[in-house]
Amino acid sequence: MTTAHAYAREHAGDFKEQLKDLIRLPSVSTDPAYAPQVRRTAEWLVAHFTGLGLAARLIEKEGRHPIVFAEWNGAGAAARTVLIYGHYDVQPAQKADGWLTEPFEPVEQNGRIYARGATDDKGQMFIHVKAVEAILKTRGRLPVNVKFLIEGEEESGGEHIAQYVNSHPPELRADVCLISDGGMTRIEEPVIVNALRGATGLEITVYGPKADLHSGMYGGSVYNPLQALAEIIARLHDDAGRVTVPGFYDDVLPLTAEERAEIAATELDEATWRAETGASLPWGEAGYSLSERLGARPTLEITGLAGGYHERGFKNIVPAKALAKISIRLVANQQPAKILALVEDYLRQLTPPAVRLEITARAGGMGAALVNTATPMMQAAINAYRQGWGAAPVFKREGGSIPIVSSFQSVLGLPVILMGFGLNSDGLHGPNESYSIEMFERGIATAIHFLDEVAAL
Amino acid sequence: MTTAHAYAREHAGDFKEQLKDLIRLPSVSTDPAYAPQVRRTAEWLVAHFTGLGLAARLIEKEGRHPIVFAEWNGAGAAARTVLIYGHYDVQPAQKADGWLTEPFEPVEQNGRIYARGATDDKGQMFIHVKAVEAILKTRGRLPVNVKFLIEGEEESGGEHIAQYVNSHPPELRADVCLISDGGMTRIEEPVIVNALRGATGLEITVYGPKADLHSGMYGGSVYNPLQALAEIIARLHDDAGRVTVPGFYDDVLPLTAEERAEIAATELDEATWRAETGASLPWGEAGYSLSERLGARPTLEITGLAGGYHERGFKNIVPAKALAKISIRLVANQQPAKILALVEDYLRQLTPPAVRLEITARAGGMGAALVNTATPMMQAAINAYRQGWGAAPVFKREGGSIPIVSSFQSVLGLPVILMGFGLNSDGLHGPNESYSIEMFERGIATAIHFLDEVAAL
Repeated sequence: MTTAHAYAREHAGDFKEQLKDLIRLPSVSTDPAYAPQVRRTAEWLVAHFTGLGLAARLIEKEGRHPIVFAEWNGAGAAARTVLIYGHYDVQPAQKADGWLTEPFEPVEQNGRIYARGATDDKGQMFIHVKAVEAILKTRGRLPVNVKFLIEGEEESGGEHIAQYVNSHPPELRADVCLISDGGMTRIEEPVIVNALRGATGLEITVYGPKADLHSGMYGGSVYNPLQALAEIIARLHDDAGRVTVPGFYDDVLPLTAEERAEIAATELDEATWRAETGASLPWGEAGYSLSERLGARPTLEITGLAGGYHERGFKNIVPAKALAKISIRLVANQQPAKILALVEDYLRQLTPPAVRLEITARAGGMGAALVNTATPMMQAAINAYRQGWGAAPVFKREGGSIPIVSSFQSVLGLPVILMGFGLNSDGLHGPNESYSIEMFERGIATAIHFLDEVAAL
Repeated sequence: MTTAHAYAREHAGDFKEQLKDLIRLPSVSTDPAYAPQVRRTAEWLVAHFTGLGLAARLIEKEGRHPIVFAEWNGAGAAARTVLIYGHYDVQPAQKADGWLTEPFEPVEQNGRIYARGATDDKGQMFIHVKAVEAILKTRGRLPVNVKFLIEGEEESGGEHIAQYVNSHPPELRADVCLISDGGMTRIEEPVIVNALRGATGLEITVYGPKADLHSGMYGGSVYNPLQALAEIIARLHDDAGRVTVPGFYDDVLPLTAEERAEIAATELDEATWRAETGASLPWGEAGYSLSERLGARPTLEITGLAGGYHERGFKNIVPAKALAKISIRLVANQQPAKILALVEDYLRQLTPPAVRLEITARAGGMGAALVNTATPMMQAAINAYRQGWGAAPVFKREGGSIPIVSSFQSVLGLPVILMGFGLNSDGLHGPNESYSIEMFERGIATAIHFLDEVAAL
């Protein structure tokens, strides 16, 4: 009898081609124009799960992207249940953003697949689908019950999944929640994330004159909305890199000496940071190391800015309006709604009376999450890495956010295992995102081991 | 025999339709993608002039938009010669900028033609073409020799016309230069402009990380180029609305009491300013009236800004770069190249070391122009307005710029008459630009009178 691991190795080529099919579907959740493609992606997954013998369906809600739910309960009521979370939606991507290839046409090069969503999160999520397939095809049954909950709004802060999780604890009953949506610095040093930042965000528009005006005829008499917006943004940080919003840090728990030592153990060295970012000099909140700034301190970033004429050439106008998008990352004990309100108040306070500020959109808020590392489930994960990946994992705080993690913890009461199978250098959210085929394959082996380890607990 | 004025009235409908044909050609000079359309517009004008009996041709130069030159020298060597300057190129325009109709499909409503270029400058320039036609068709000859010099780079700061004018004084020999490319506040109060601001400009790009980064993974450790750009822009003006670039005002001649009194005579009142701009409160350099800020003081405006993700929704990135376009208006005695260098130096000085600033484009520079109002030619213009428009003009400083005016004055030694036939509320450079058909027709009558008045001097 072929083992699940042998099956996975033999079918590695098929698995990769299936992943490419999934990647080709441009499931950009933040832009309503892509809604049909997002839906098609969800339907593709339901069909795929069904083909593997799982009971799969869409969880729908008017005006929201569907959630894919799939389960296999053949291990029986006495067996453990693993809830696997992932997301099938992706960040926006356009060739003009600096892609060398078409973002939604996967290209294989140097052992990597280049395409939007390759690592975040299609490739990482698909690892678990293929691990389940390998076991089912070789043993006819899984060692544990499995529930897949794959959402389509992770990249757009949608609230569909939170509403569903909060209102359906019985359907989602499980013993552990497994998530692969993160990265490590080096393939030889796998990482289990033990803290995630929360996030919220907003879009502001500054309005000035009623329409774009001739900059010669009116320039110098009208408060230019681009200038006003720049002045507002310039005041959001002080010279020490601290966010100036009053109260922004009030609820942040000071790092203990023990926590700082733990962070220091996997401190991001400046050379690696330089290689990953391509930036010349670090920046940020004075008094904190790079890893502390990224994993343990809240931040405020301008993620987009636009106004006036920004195509080729010049257009001599005082523009009617200017827009900025702001992303805020939170740490444990900060409440997204409270912080968002503080930021909005401060933005209004900074706005000069000659222009008008409107909050034109808000991103859904999510709290930060801390993970207890001293659990049997965590031991199962460590064992799985040792056998499947070939190295023991290190624990690390992650700067990014996975919106639903705090609901899994608080509403479902589950231990969450953040088994990231990506590399930080995969270029997620940027152009030329890619995923290592070797990591995809090592991930499948690790995921098979994890299910067996959970069964053996 | 029909008079030229009667002919113009009888053919008013034809003239208007011809103007619409000219407007339909999207001659956007700043964007290279429109180069073929710009050329087609120039060719349309050559054919039109030829049809009227003028000797017309394109003046070409590799990589530049052609100049249209047309002349009629039948008045003889002893007669006076009028050089009429205008431009056939237009500002960019896209429906999405807030246009209620297609920008390049003229729509007639409430006695106005709505379309890009309707007033700036196709409608105003075409007035003189039709005035010449009316005289030629009714008298068989003009009272003066006429040279038309219609350029295609006025809106993009191109240097083709300046190079041509500077190197071809003999071909352009004339007694006066007539330009209609400006406006008045009210139709009952025609304006002759006696000062134009100069202009220059530049585009800057601030570079940060090598590519867009995940804002959760790296936000808080990288100097965000959008933040850096906002901080740079915020420092370009002080709280009193003054430009902070060192040396920016050094060469500005202080306004004399007499000049201030002259400006005060046509002072823009706040209610009119409010109606024209739709802005709530005036802004600008402390210590100067609205009209002084617009006509007699240099200014610096941000005309465009862009970076990161600014479509619908959110994208959680630290962007790789950020772009801004800056327009600078100058007054008499300021040298464009000198001011541009001061601004560039200051921008570099303001740039934090963690990001990199590049000057990614420069707009052509042009000096400001003052007009001597005590000349016989100016008297001819005043008389023409009295008869053709039905009111005597007032003199006024204009905030806008017409690049070539200073060359006409200094290289050709010509008195320049700035006979603006537009309204400030025409919405030039913004969406829904329009031109009053009544002003088009009154303009033709005034232009016919001007040629006769010059001949009678």
